[in-house]
Amino acid sequence: MSHTIAEIAEALGATALGDLDLEITGAAEPADAGPGDLALAMKPEYAAGLGQGHACAAMLWEGADWQDLGLQAAIIPARPRFAMAGLTAALDRGHGYTTGIHPTAIIGEGAELGEHVSVGAYAVIGAGARIGAGSVIGPQAYVGIDSQIGAATVLHVGVRIGPRVRIGARFIAHPGAAIGMDGFSFVTPEVNAVEQARASLGEEVDAAAQSWVRIHSLGAVEIGDDVEIGCNACVDAGTIRPTRIGNGTKIDNLCHIAHNVVVGNDCLFAALVGIAGSTVIGSNVTLGGQVGVTDNTHVGDRVVAGGGTKILNKVPAGRIVLGYPAIKMDQHLDIYKAQRRLPRMMQELAELKTRLAALEAKG
Amino acid sequence: MSHTIAEIAEALGATALGDLDLEITGAAEPADAGPGDLALAMKPEYAAGLGQGHACAAMLWEGADWQDLGLQAAIIPARPRFAMAGLTAALDRGHGYTTGIHPTAIIGEGAELGEHVSVGAYAVIGAGARIGAGSVIGPQAYVGIDSQIGAATVLHVGVRIGPRVRIGARFIAHPGAAIGMDGFSFVTPEVNAVEQARASLGEEVDAAAQSWVRIHSLGAVEIGDDVEIGCNACVDAGTIRPTRIGNGTKIDNLCHIAHNVVVGNDCLFAALVGIAGSTVIGSNVTLGGQVGVTDNTHVGDRVVAGGGTKILNKVPAGRIVLGYPAIKMDQHLDIYKAQRRLPRMMQELAELKTRLAALEAKG
Amino acid sequence: MSHTIAEIAEALGATALGDLDLEITGAAEPADAGPGDLALAMKPEYAAGLGQGHACAAMLWEGADWQDLGLQAAIIPARPRFAMAGLTAALDRGHGYTTGIHPTAIIGEGAELGEHVSVGAYAVIGAGARIGAGSVIGPQAYVGIDSQIGAATVLHVGVRIGPRVRIGARFIAHPGAAIGMDGFSFVTPEVNAVEQARASLGEEVDAAAQSWVRIHSLGAVEIGDDVEIGCNACVDAGTIRPTRIGNGTKIDNLCHIAHNVVVGNDCLFAALVGIAGSTVIGSNVTLGGQVGVTDNTHVGDRVVAGGGTKILNKVPAGRIVLGYPAIKMDQHLDIYKAQRRLPRMMQELAELKTRLAALEAKG
Repeated sequence: MSHTIAEIAEALGATALGDLDLEITGAAEPADAGPGDLALAMKPEYAAGLGQGHACAAMLWEGADWQDLGLQAAIIPARPRFAMAGLTAALDRGHGYTTGIHPTAIIGEGAELGEHVSVGAYAVIGAGARIGAGSVIGPQAYVGIDSQIGAATVLHVGVRIGPRVRIGARFIAHPGAAIGMDGFSFVTPEVNAVEQARASLGEEVDAAAQSWVRIHSLGAVEIGDDVEIGCNACVDAGTIRPTRIGNGTKIDNLCHIAHNVVVGNDCLFAALVGIAGSTVIGSNVTLGGQVGVTDNTHVGDRVVAGGGTKILNKVPAGRIVLGYPAIKMDQHLDIYKAQRRLPRMMQELAELKTRLAALEAKG
Repeated sequence: MSHTIAEIAEALGATALGDLDLEITGAAEPADAGPGDLALAMKPEYAAGLGQGHACAAMLWEGADWQDLGLQAAIIPARPRFAMAGLTAALDRGHGYTTGIHPTAIIGEGAELGEHVSVGAYAVIGAGARIGAGSVIGPQAYVGIDSQIGAATVLHVGVRIGPRVRIGARFIAHPGAAIGMDGFSFVTPEVNAVEQARASLGEEVDAAAQSWVRIHSLGAVEIGDDVEIGCNACVDAGTIRPTRIGNGTKIDNLCHIAHNVVVGNDCLFAALVGIAGSTVIGSNVTLGGQVGVTDNTHVGDRVVAGGGTKILNKVPAGRIVLGYPAIKMDQHLDIYKAQRRLPRMMQELAELKTRLAALEAKG
Repeated sequence: MSHTIAEIAEALGATALGDLDLEITGAAEPADAGPGDLALAMKPEYAAGLGQGHACAAMLWEGADWQDLGLQAAIIPARPRFAMAGLTAALDRGHGYTTGIHPTAIIGEGAELGEHVSVGAYAVIGAGARIGAGSVIGPQAYVGIDSQIGAATVLHVGVRIGPRVRIGARFIAHPGAAIGMDGFSFVTPEVNAVEQARASLGEEVDAAAQSWVRIHSLGAVEIGDDVEIGCNACVDAGTIRPTRIGNGTKIDNLCHIAHNVVVGNDCLFAALVGIAGSTVIGSNVTLGGQVGVTDNTHVGDRVVAGGGTKILNKVPAGRIVLGYPAIKMDQHLDIYKAQRRLPRMMQELAELKTRLAALEAKG
């Protein structure tokens, strides 16, 4: 796979300089670059690396002097980070899944595959499932009965889709992702300790020990277009209605989206995020790694939560939060600074007490 | 699958009103309900939704006037949340796994399958394994050598059971769950930095860098009856004796139960919980999402830990805890309230100091 | 599998006492031990258990009187915890994978398997992959195209290796581990709310809602020798250069190592650890369970982080940290003690204010 400097610049909407016909076969950090690589040096501090590597062409920061850097060609993008999207898409060599229906693939009765669908070795597609045109079902993947998956989807190796799931177009799921499996919902015959604890806000409870009875998941999962779900991440089925994920939302490895959760459009959840049952997350919400959101709450549009934040209450739209429990990030930083002085404050308080007592005694 | 109002009410031990022969084929939220659905409107605030939907029958709160709500029939349960268990079980259409032993299933030498066991496509059952009557081994699942699994179990697609595991009856494991795999246990030839840090409670340590040597897991896993384990959750094998999970315990997606841990009966662990090695958890313990419990500690019976709690020390029976580190929930809420005033307290303290100095100077 | 007391002691470099020809077939806790087991009683407090069990031989603490304890033989190791490594390795009965290439294994075009490589049922090895001599590829495992795996490796059941990954010798990966899959990297066409929030440290942001565009992962993963990766753990591919893991590093279940991360040698990461993109971790770093490390930061050699720690900033070499955000462990313990007195401090401060005001009024 090779592209000329002119082709790449055009695809990125970037400025091309120098030898526009130079062929590029890969991308590399400046110091690691070989003669066929486009070196990525989008900030002046990467200039030194160009001298150590062997790149003939580079993607450079605005205003860089490509000739002075010893290059034959250069590409100058308007927004370098965004240019990475186009560049890496062009150079991606992919996972190399074989095309067509592998002879070992098992396609259930009544399942319908669109045009140019590939199904890998040892994949299993349940009865009544429908797969949109141009989709790739990886080796050892599984699609549950009566599920529907949109066009141009990629289910990587070992992805598992449960029964009756509805997914839009251009879906990407990474190895081990489990979507539409039974929710974690249990109830005791009588009121139990957890229900008492929630009602009493933490006083001791006296509920007798009981066994848990399962609430089954009838609601499956509904996912919009252009969604991506990471390795070993889980989206559980809803109890009565579907668990829902909007268009354009991206969910990283090892995340957990519980039953009945509703997630809006264009959210970004980093790895190990957990959203508890029946919570509603707005659109354009960004959650850092290991963020947790309690059940039955609401997180507004455009909220940003820093890594490790535990959201225990409703968060209004547009707020930036951090901490456990989550509060506004600037307030958190103030509290945090004060906390570090807390041991000294304790000493000062004791000292003031002594001095005040002395004054009072005198007085 | 259809049930009459009378049948459902009888199964739930609930009161049935109106047309007892009305046929129900599904359940739905009030506004989404079609004519064949039982609308779920167990609180007065859901009454409005009934008008928007097309349900002829509903499950209602005690005292509701079903005729006034325009229904032909109603079911009034004593404990609505508990009624959900029976109702959803009756209406669950399941995962649709094929019955019988699929021709591609591989059954190891000496493995014994009870009556009416199903084994899915591309499942592998190790030599000497024993599967109890009526169990369903899903497609692409794996059962290790010499493992024993009780009757009426469901291993969903892609579940992995390690070697020599013992599991009771009515076990349910969700896709990707890994049970009985090697524990994470390593040792250095000489005393290392972590051992020093634990002994010194955090002072700098000077142990030389060393490589880790593996301690193998000889102890497998023992699980009681009626246990459920979530998607991609892990229960590691013990070192010398089994890691143990009691009867009736339910463990959600992406949880980690380390080697040598002992968990009692009827516990409930939400998603992303981690229990470190050799810790003992009592019975009827409820851990919220992302709770962590340190190694070699003890959590008493009936403890409830809120989401995100990190338990770093022993917790006595019956306590409700929250926070990092875990403390009593009511105490945590007091500290938390005080923390939010901490920046102001710092200012006040500085002001008092100035005023006191002024008085002293005068004095 | 049976070993004499003399053989075991020699393998461990330990002292053997009594009947050196006694045959041992397993290891057990003292009270559970049968006559063929070596009881593990390496501290005096385990002596009582020996009386309850039926062991004829035990591994004992230094100075123990084996004859007085009613034993026929004993082994006294210099460092008992380290002796566990050798002992458990000797007694490990393994996972019982069948040897040779299973007839259902699919080996891609141009893939090369070294001598004595085993490939399990329904495993798939991609085109151009190379597997070192003596390796075991478990049932249902997957190796991506053009990946290279060193000698004497074990990929347990259902492990997934992505395309173009490079792994050293003696690698062990547990079920469901996903290595070399696409990183989680997205960008918006214009500057977005998260970029603004980082720049403003938490003030409200006004960036318009945008959709995410994917940055592809061209960089794969490079892993050294003697690395072990737990069940359902993930190591994502780098963007331009590989994500790297050094020699001897051990990573537990359900950990997430993001794209571009560099991990040094001989690190130990407990379960549910998350390392965000482009962060560099030194050598001999120990991270407790559920530790999180933010993106683009640096954690120095020999750092130890307690369970649940969230590292939001650079940590210098040798430091022991705890808390959210991570600070020095001893400082954390001081702050934590002060925090518990915080509600009382608030009362005291209010009281001092009143008394001071009274004095001032008098003055």
